[in-house]
Amino acid sequence: MKNYRFIDGTVTSPLGFTANGICAGIKAYGSATQPALKNEPLLPSNGKRDLALICCEKQCSAAAIFTKNLVKSDTIYVTQKHLENGRAQAVIVNSGNANACNPDGYEKAEKMCRIASEVLGVAEDDVIVASTGVIGQALPIEPIEAGARAMRGTLSKEGGTNAAEAIMTTDTVRKEWAVQLTLGGKTVTIGGIAKGSGMIHINMGTTLSFVTTDAAVSAEMLREALVEAADVSYNMVSVDGDTSTNDTLAIMASGLAGNDEITEKNEDYHIFTEALTAAFKRVAKMLASDGEGATKLVVCKVDGAKDENTAKVIAKSVICSSLVKAAMFGADANCGRILCAVGYSGAEVNTKKIDVSYRSAKGEILVCRDGFGLAFDEDKAKEILLENEIDIIITLSDGSGSAEAYGCDLTYDYVKINGDYRT
Amino acid sequence: MKNYRFIDGTVTSPLGFTANGICAGIKAYGSATQPALKNEPLLPSNGKRDLALICCEKQCSAAAIFTKNLVKSDTIYVTQKHLENGRAQAVIVNSGNANACNPDGYEKAEKMCRIASEVLGVAEDDVIVASTGVIGQALPIEPIEAGARAMRGTLSKEGGTNAAEAIMTTDTVRKEWAVQLTLGGKTVTIGGIAKGSGMIHINMGTTLSFVTTDAAVSAEMLREALVEAADVSYNMVSVDGDTSTNDTLAIMASGLAGNDEITEKNEDYHIFTEALTAAFKRVAKMLASDGEGATKLVVCKVDGAKDENTAKVIAKSVICSSLVKAAMFGADANCGRILCAVGYSGAEVNTKKIDVSYRSAKGEILVCRDGFGLAFDEDKAKEILLENEIDIIITLSDGSGSAEAYGCDLTYDYVKINGDYRT
Repeated sequence: MKNYRFIDGTVTSPLGFTANGICAGIKAYGSATQPALKNEPLLPSNGKRDLALICCEKQCSAAAIFTKNLVKSDTIYVTQKHLENGRAQAVIVNSGNANACNPDGYEKAEKMCRIASEVLGVAEDDVIVASTGVIGQALPIEPIEAGARAMRGTLSKEGGTNAAEAIMTTDTVRKEWAVQLTLGGKTVTIGGIAKGSGMIHINMGTTLSFVTTDAAVSAEMLREALVEAADVSYNMVSVDGDTSTNDTLAIMASGLAGNDEITEKNEDYHIFTEALTAAFKRVAKMLASDGEGATKLVVCKVDGAKDENTAKVIAKSVICSSLVKAAMFGADANCGRILCAVGYSGAEVNTKKIDVSYRSAKGEILVCRDGFGLAFDEDKAKEILLENEIDIIITLSDGSGSAEAYGCDLTYDYVKINGDYRT
Repeated sequence: MKNYRFIDGTVTSPLGFTANGICAGIKAYGSATQPALKNEPLLPSNGKRDLALICCEKQCSAAAIFTKNLVKSDTIYVTQKHLENGRAQAVIVNSGNANACNPDGYEKAEKMCRIASEVLGVAEDDVIVASTGVIGQALPIEPIEAGARAMRGTLSKEGGTNAAEAIMTTDTVRKEWAVQLTLGGKTVTIGGIAKGSGMIHINMGTTLSFVTTDAAVSAEMLREALVEAADVSYNMVSVDGDTSTNDTLAIMASGLAGNDEITEKNEDYHIFTEALTAAFKRVAKMLASDGEGATKLVVCKVDGAKDENTAKVIAKSVICSSLVKAAMFGADANCGRILCAVGYSGAEVNTKKIDVSYRSAKGEILVCRDGFGLAFDEDKAKEILLENEIDIIITLSDGSGSAEAYGCDLTYDYVKINGDYRT
């Protein structure tokens, strides 16, 4: 039985949190290569939202996990420093510029925290900062400062959705969610917003996610829960170690739900983490289906592997294969590309014990049994693969390890979007 | 000083070798899912060539290296068995069907050798067999048998080019080469043909290469030379361990040039291997520029790495990045994607000591110094990147390791070609 239920909601659904997001004109404002026109309006009235603030009425316990890329945005170092004490109260985040690989990146990330601190009346070291967008161009601080000041006093429960929009880059839909559960008789809400696209080499999609909850959870347990939930969700749309410069997944817990604070891995911890995991898996699917240019969500489910890690390695290898992704775009029930991706994954498998089938709302079709391609009904296969949610099911006979990985198809539009991203 | 010179030539240029390639109608003939029409003509007169024979007038010393994919075509097991004694005299190879993941694959690979043996009058276990094409569909042996018989007595010096055409799949140009050198006063020729495309995830491109020489070289030294030369060429358009089911690189040496047989790593061995390496690097560039849908060759050159292996890891990571490849298609001098790919490569680098520039026939432009993006002349960068041969030059300050990797851009046509490969 599930101990949680999804509700309509966002990052402001938990008690204590408000937010807003506006168009500060960061991308238009200028960059290292396109000097700003100082007399341009600072707050374009009808552009894409690109600056968000999230705030809690009280200091929260907080934790975050970050990209494993050696090249990191300075926002990550500043946020890490601010979370050393396990406390935070607000988030400032911009899209349009990643503030990565810039000589003055650290200074500007600190400046963003100072701006949020002034506008929201919170301590500077209680601010989480993040950026997403083009790498290697100077971050224009002026529109951020003006934009944040313009948001003073405007943060609200409804503003969570504006914040979700403000962190989008090539995303085509905003990503927000909320889930409720009961801990010790108290209703607890967890909510979040996320951005991420550019998923062809899944590893490259910058993911930003901000999660809030009114549960009382210690910073240490928040971190444990984040790692546990991300491992089977965010990390299954992302090859470990192969991440963008800016990936940040942060959580703040206000404790306003009034439950007994979770300070160890007790039953409440597991109920909380179960709900968080379900929510993160939903986000993983949102990220994958909104992959740049994607027309369909592709989930690879592996069962019967030697162990869970083997299953993960195989599922990720299949979901990352450009040839598999292109075949999904073409609704081509190619089994050779799946077997090939299993074979080069590095995982230990008995190649004569691999079954492969495709499944969607239109049914399921077996295309490979015991490692050999089967003759199958091409029309039926086409009908199944023309749906926009496809499962690739790989069954091995080596043990009981299972895993799911989330991806999308590779399309003309991916190339279009990424052929000239900066302009 | 170089000890070799490239000449116009192909796999039949060395003394003793002849070849031919015809259209046997393998793909049209039928497959597991599309039963053959038995009354179709067996030798379509104007289709694509899909069957080749290469033969030497005498038994040769021989060696080969193969895919590291766990899922292998049975042709590989049969060829491995035939090369156990280090001898071979002929090659039979088809395109249109990979003969991989089929229950009767081994039997049919052996049958192909038996057919070649009969037609060419060579021992069955002196035949090298290879296949390339769709995985997981039964190989139709009838057109291969009829086709090979039709080639009886037709092999010639001129036929090498037909053989080069016969192994092409999605390749748009045939790939053949020859190089001459002098060993102990004797003129020695090495020649070869290759196929390979589908290079977006470079790892997935099936590569078949057949190399011949009239040098006298022992099987053991042939193998050593193959490994050494492939390591900085084929393996730099291919991520180690991430290879197709059928990759085969085979060499036969007739000894007809009359040089002293190379049986140890003496000066002659090094001169021979130097020429082989230069030829293989040329093939690597041919494979990369003919990547599926590719409009340009992209070479990543890394210098100043901690060691050679670190340089290789970085160069391959950059060349494999879909975002970098899409940027090259769009002639977008993005430095962030390069830095990102360096950062997630897993290599040890000082991220504050990375310089990046782009170079082509139109000049060179520095876009990143000491890990930071630079303001640069966008028009100049565009002009450089609109060329069809681009170098991405990464300079580190960690040591003296250097490497080159070969790739191509990612285009709409890649998606088109791979969206429906089987039809």
